[in-house]
Formats: sequence, C-alpha cells, structure tokens
Amino acid sequence: MYGLIGQIKAAPGQRDALIEIMLEGLMAMPGCLSYILARDPLEEDLIWVTEVWDSPISHQNSLGLPSVQQAIMKARPLIAGFGQRFETLPVGGHGLPRNQMQE
Amino acid sequence: MYGLIGQIKAAPGQRDALIEIMLEGLMAMPGCLSYILARDPLEEDLIWVTEVWDSPISHQNSLGLPSVQQAIMKARPLIAGFGQRFETLPVGGHGLPRNQMQE
Repeated sequence: MYGLIGQIKAAPGQRDALIEIMLEGLMAMPGCLSYILARDPLEEDLIWVTEVWDSPISHQNSLGLPSVQQAIMKARPLIAGFGQRFETLPVGGHGLPRNQMQE
Repeated sequence: MYGLIGQIKAAPGQRDALIEIMLEGLMAMPGCLSYILARDPLEEDLIWVTEVWDSPISHQNSLGLPSVQQAIMKARPLIAGFGQRFETLPVGGHGLPRNQMQE
C-alpha cells in the first residue's frame, strides 16, 4: 500500500468550496482505499488530506482520470498553496477494505 | 467528526512488533470510523497513525476500553517516543462509513 498525508492551503475564505470540489472528484478512483478530507482546527484555510492507495501507480494513474482532471481544473483557482507532505507505507487498520487489512 | 494524525517512534527494531500489538488493540472501538497504521518510508522506527472518530469523546472513551488498555500495556516497552501530532476536523471522503460521508 501507498499513503499520503498532506496539507492544502485554500485561498482566503474558500476552504469549504475547495473541499466540496475535491469530494466530488473522489468518486470511483481505482485502487483508492481511503481518501479523507479534514479541516484544520487552528488554521482557517488549511485542509488535511490523508490517502491510502493499493500502490503508488494507482495514485499516479488517478491524476489522469477525467473526473480528477476536472476537479483539479475547478479547484486550482481556490488553492493558495501546499504545506507539509508525507509519504507513508500503510500496513493496515480499521477503515480499509477487508482484504487489505493485516489481522 | 474528530481526527488525529500522529507519529509514534518505536524502540530500535521494534516497529513491526509495535504495529502488531496496535492492530490487535483496534478491534471494535465504538465511534472509531478509521484507524490506519503506516510505516514511514524514510525513518525506520517511525509509525504514522491516522484516526477518524465520530467525536472527541469517543476517542477519549476508547482509552478506557479493556482491549485498548491491554494494548497500551503491551506496547509501552516498545515505544521510544512520540513525534508530530495534529488534530483535525474530518469532513468526509472515501473510506468512512457511508452515513458519515458528506456528498
């Protein structure tokens, strides 16, 4: 598995609009096991994205999906920048499809 | 919803043993919507934990569950320390129970 934990900084006041666009773009991405958006409780324009994919290739391929490309085009004007970004190697847990869990 | 993104540093060489104990302790925590453990690809003793709960209270209550207390007792000797820790306010996405998603 392949994971990403990252921060996206929305343009001022645009965080919820950006989240909305991103949630729309998340439908049916092959190999995507978990993709959760969260508001930062302290920085009002900051969004956290935590992702789990079955492989780095699935993540890479998702960027070419028409639904994702449309979301990126719509989202771009609302993005002020990016913050921290961590790659991870997910092992298992709760909230992943059953056959991906290590138990 | 309530989220946590955190780093746990295992004692040298104990990362996988610690992950194993933590995965065992994760069963049936009320209000836990997602709880994923990941290895850091660069730091060999570092574990990432990303959590989503229905409320901060469910997270707090989980610490009193017998299964979690047992896991903490078993895990403690294998933990060298904690790293970064971020609280988040999850909004939705893929990998959460259906009725928690904002769509």
